[in-house]
Amino acid sequence: MIQTPYLLFLGDAPDNLAAKVAQGIRDWNPDAAVGQFRMEGCKADVGLPDMTLEEASAAGAGTLVIGVANRGGVISDAWKEVLVAAIEAGFDIASGLHTLLRNENALQSAARVHGQTLHDVRIPTVAYPIATGVKRTGKRCLAIGTDCSVGKMYTGLAMDAEMQKRGMKSTFRPTGQTGILITGRGVPLDAVIADFMAGSVEYLTPDNDPDHWDHIEGQGSLFHVSYSGVTLALIHGGQPDALVLAHEPTRTHMRGLPDYPIPKLEDLRDMALPLARIANPRAQVIGVSVNTKALDDAEAEACLREIEDRMGLPAVDPYRHGAGRLVDALEAI
Amino acid sequence: MIQTPYLLFLGDAPDNLAAKVAQGIRDWNPDAAVGQFRMEGCKADVGLPDMTLEEASAAGAGTLVIGVANRGGVISDAWKEVLVAAIEAGFDIASGLHTLLRNENALQSAARVHGQTLHDVRIPTVAYPIATGVKRTGKRCLAIGTDCSVGKMYTGLAMDAEMQKRGMKSTFRPTGQTGILITGRGVPLDAVIADFMAGSVEYLTPDNDPDHWDHIEGQGSLFHVSYSGVTLALIHGGQPDALVLAHEPTRTHMRGLPDYPIPKLEDLRDMALPLARIANPRAQVIGVSVNTKALDDAEAEACLREIEDRMGLPAVDPYRHGAGRLVDALEAI
Repeated sequence: MIQTPYLLFLGDAPDNLAAKVAQGIRDWNPDAAVGQFRMEGCKADVGLPDMTLEEASAAGAGTLVIGVANRGGVISDAWKEVLVAAIEAGFDIASGLHTLLRNENALQSAARVHGQTLHDVRIPTVAYPIATGVKRTGKRCLAIGTDCSVGKMYTGLAMDAEMQKRGMKSTFRPTGQTGILITGRGVPLDAVIADFMAGSVEYLTPDNDPDHWDHIEGQGSLFHVSYSGVTLALIHGGQPDALVLAHEPTRTHMRGLPDYPIPKLEDLRDMALPLARIANPRAQVIGVSVNTKALDDAEAEACLREIEDRMGLPAVDPYRHGAGRLVDALEAI
Repeated sequence: MIQTPYLLFLGDAPDNLAAKVAQGIRDWNPDAAVGQFRMEGCKADVGLPDMTLEEASAAGAGTLVIGVANRGGVISDAWKEVLVAAIEAGFDIASGLHTLLRNENALQSAARVHGQTLHDVRIPTVAYPIATGVKRTGKRCLAIGTDCSVGKMYTGLAMDAEMQKRGMKSTFRPTGQTGILITGRGVPLDAVIADFMAGSVEYLTPDNDPDHWDHIEGQGSLFHVSYSGVTLALIHGGQPDALVLAHEPTRTHMRGLPDYPIPKLEDLRDMALPLARIANPRAQVIGVSVNTKALDDAEAEACLREIEDRMGLPAVDPYRHGAGRLVDALEAI
């Protein structure tokens, strides 16, 4: 559990894309951040007030979150100076970078001296159990993709936000670094030991009220040979009642695998459903989430209509048009 | 790579079952062990000459292998005395126990002083890559089970042994602790970090001669929700050309999961084949390996005949009747 609210560290980000993590926090958990900290030359701006460490501290911030992906995975000396100053000013530090905070001597010793915590959210801190497969109370929804990076996290976040708006009981359950930094908790599934993957997902989504929905962040794809095992552990540990198919219609091959074609949505449905029903015989596919970012308005609408007609399921881009129809489909279960 | 030949440590094993690992080495790689070391009160016997540390050393043994599963996962003081003496006598120690050798101060410091190696084969020592999915040369066979612990390792070992006997090119590729101790190498897949599972299997089964077969040791089951992700990583990292369905006909529910029924062999075939063809479009199911240990001769024969007729595939118990017909089926590919 990471202390909120945050001060978002944008460092010397060369553009907004580099500050994707900070932008995700700003978009999906705006109450969690009081301001942004930008170094000289920073070209990113997530639209929060610029603050010094002192100002952020006065505004109640307890954690400085590294909201920027750095070049080459190195924490530069210029960054380190700011991070050490933040620790000295009473901040914890949280990071999803490959380079671990704990491996930086300057940060490690400053944290020890000042009694602050370094959160490397890339690494699990819990000894997860082996999955028991026991049926849990409450309901669960999982987005599964035709490929990696097609919008599964945004789908879950958008459905959760829509449910909150409607006053329904709902929790977003992160399984990746960005999601963990957005909510302050979760399981870094890609770093969990093989035998405990499904157990970590059970741990993440415990018994709950019968009308409560967990929106479990999806990872990888059953069709992506590098990560498919992680995806199946999510399906079997998560016991989803509802599956949302996630798709990016302009992708020409699986991400990073030039020889692997993108599966059809029908193939994804037919592969995933029998697997999901092993853990939850009531599992059903309730809709399609399409990432239409690369399409103009008319193309996006045509694409969604075609998929909706073909699949007989609501097809929406939750980022572009909201997740209302996906939540309607959940309510209908 | 663990130094052979071994001296097999049976400790104070209360019965032969407790010495399963030693028995596996004795059964499947007899040249790898020069003798057994038994403490007072040991009730196990794998049929090798009893040797002192000095005798085993003189016979060329370089590693003492813990061939016995201990009670409660603890390395007792009585064991430790023998293990330290072995290190002092110039042996490396290899173990697949949950309790790690390296966490025992007495062993750790003796090994440091005498320049010997402690092999905890439960833990990976390699930084495995992320899987690339690139098609590799050579052929691969993988046993997949209706459940865990139905004889997948024995199937692979028996097929490899039969191929060796026929002068065919073949290697057994262990993915579990016992298999690693049998051959002295392999990948402890259940302890690999999620993102690198499939990559570790690619690493284990590299490019090879076009007529060479890797027999990859199977793990878990697609239908076992605790470990299914590990199984799918094996299927996608292994790119098997040939799948063998492994089954134990008297099992009433999935191992450790009382609410989960055992799938039919047909369901296993229909689930596994489309998944396998993502990584290798030429994948096919070539036979069924049935663990008939719990059946008498007549029952076993009836069971095999029924499965063979139903599935239209050779059905054999490789431990009881040899793996000849499974290897025939591979040759026919």
